[in-house]
Amino acid sequence: MSERPWRVVQFGLGPIGVACAIAVLRHPKLELVAAVDQDPGLEGRALGAFLPMDVPSSDVVVAPDLGEALEEGVSADVAIHTTQSRIPQVRSQLEALCQSGLNVVSSCEELLWPRLAAPQDAEALDACAREHGVSIIGSGVNPGFVLDTLALVASAPSVDVKRIDARRVVDAASRRGPLQKKVGAGLSEAEFRGLAAEKRLGHVGLVESLALLAAGLGWSLERTEEKLEPKLADAAIKTEHVDVSAGQVAGIHHTASGWTADGRELHLDLQMYVGAAEPGDEIEIAGNPPIHLKSVGGIAGDTATTSMLINLIPRILEAPPGLRTMLDIGLPRSF
Amino acid sequence: MSERPWRVVQFGLGPIGVACAIAVLRHPKLELVAAVDQDPGLEGRALGAFLPMDVPSSDVVVAPDLGEALEEGVSADVAIHTTQSRIPQVRSQLEALCQSGLNVVSSCEELLWPRLAAPQDAEALDACAREHGVSIIGSGVNPGFVLDTLALVASAPSVDVKRIDARRVVDAASRRGPLQKKVGAGLSEAEFRGLAAEKRLGHVGLVESLALLAAGLGWSLERTEEKLEPKLADAAIKTEHVDVSAGQVAGIHHTASGWTADGRELHLDLQMYVGAAEPGDEIEIAGNPPIHLKSVGGIAGDTATTSMLINLIPRILEAPPGLRTMLDIGLPRSF
Repeated sequence: MSERPWRVVQFGLGPIGVACAIAVLRHPKLELVAAVDQDPGLEGRALGAFLPMDVPSSDVVVAPDLGEALEEGVSADVAIHTTQSRIPQVRSQLEALCQSGLNVVSSCEELLWPRLAAPQDAEALDACAREHGVSIIGSGVNPGFVLDTLALVASAPSVDVKRIDARRVVDAASRRGPLQKKVGAGLSEAEFRGLAAEKRLGHVGLVESLALLAAGLGWSLERTEEKLEPKLADAAIKTEHVDVSAGQVAGIHHTASGWTADGRELHLDLQMYVGAAEPGDEIEIAGNPPIHLKSVGGIAGDTATTSMLINLIPRILEAPPGLRTMLDIGLPRSF
Repeated sequence: MSERPWRVVQFGLGPIGVACAIAVLRHPKLELVAAVDQDPGLEGRALGAFLPMDVPSSDVVVAPDLGEALEEGVSADVAIHTTQSRIPQVRSQLEALCQSGLNVVSSCEELLWPRLAAPQDAEALDACAREHGVSIIGSGVNPGFVLDTLALVASAPSVDVKRIDARRVVDAASRRGPLQKKVGAGLSEAEFRGLAAEKRLGHVGLVESLALLAAGLGWSLERTEEKLEPKLADAAIKTEHVDVSAGQVAGIHHTASGWTADGRELHLDLQMYVGAAEPGDEIEIAGNPPIHLKSVGGIAGDTATTSMLINLIPRILEAPPGLRTMLDIGLPRSF
């Protein structure tokens, strides 16, 4: 492990980005050297001014773009990239980071298994990263951990695996406002179905988790199926961010399944809704031996995504250049 | 993934070795090309003769040593090595495997974190593997998975980890005879303490799990403590292999703990005894966020170790030459 702290650029200052900046400032082996966000309301503001009191102080000032952030000779090892969910939205941001010689850990959900949604962008990003001698990885807790990486690692002591079921239940009431909106809390069922058809709500990354699982197992999926259904509220529920009446949408029930030609199956089941009584994660592997793991009380979403991004920094710094996935870095772990 | 099956030498035909040979014969991407065991009772016997009826047939004949196994131009990619627990006992076997150009996946418990028990042997093995362009790894389910690798991966979505507790309870009655003996089932407490003092019983590998965990987290342990206590039977219990009266030893309660200078802690707790009512595994991580994982019903020991060794074959074949650990191969997973 390096003697000096690794220097980090925080790219994107939404809720996850701010949480990452805080985690960097608190980490003894990381140093925050720059922060970028395109929101004009943030430009030029001292980052410290909008962080909690107990966070170590920082003299970083928010820059509107990467060029400005790095212009006075700031050098850095890695960027934590937390902006959007789709690869086409973030490709130019990631290329700019690579061109500045920065390795990248990103929360972009599609980047978990980039060849699925955007194979040409993925190829271009891989080439760009190699050209500049840096590595990029996309991850988080979901996608990135509970329904894919953890399920793969859980399969390590089992052979002849016929089926994996991974389930996650999240109480959206415990999560940030944008996430409660993203799962449709407070909509009517009709509104939900309309927005779902336009892909304007729901969770991004479930099919990427499925693809990562399949690739990790060496399975070729002959058929896949994705379903997004509303989870309706049995009773009224009110959170800090939303009011849901009984019968309105409380959140999502999102599933993705895949089948191989020789009858093996993968099933991912994600429920994210306000008022979920028993949040938790569960992985069942039908293999030899069978494996059944549970997380007691669940793995807290936003904090876990932030921590995952932080913990991937040493892994991406040691990875060979290119666009990487959770399959080809060293063992993910806290640092 | 390679098109042709990988060719495997099974080195050692004790219970785990035979189980590995069976798993290789059953695996569509593996081919068993040789089997070695020094037991004169096995030499020259057709392996198929002592395998269950439902295992695909094999014309492999047991050879007394590696030279004889490979002498008629048999070439192989990897050896599964399942003989002894201590590095000095197996060093020359591993060197011979490397010199024959074979990558090695071994169940030798001390090899999980080889620098702990035998740093000089580890250095020599690393040099030998590099010289011959092959890789070696030691793993299994315990050590190798439940109390170390899984605990590390479980920590990936958490930062500021202060403490990890990993506990495993195994019902030794469900395990092979040698393991029931190894945990002292049927001894008096005095006999147990005598043999324990001579290190003639107990589990090998718990301190290696502790060292792997610490290294994986980047922690330097200032102090460690290992304890081996007998677990006494409350009531008489009889297995296929042993009779235990009430008050006699049913098995072991083995713990290993470590503390860093800045107050972080690791605690491993292993109970292996006949009649354990609730076998299972549990990992608790005090970090941000906290993580609490349980395996429902436990992860079956011998089968899981066999499967783990099989599943490490693709990982060790793609690893750079040298003596490797679970920290520096790709994501462990079923294949």
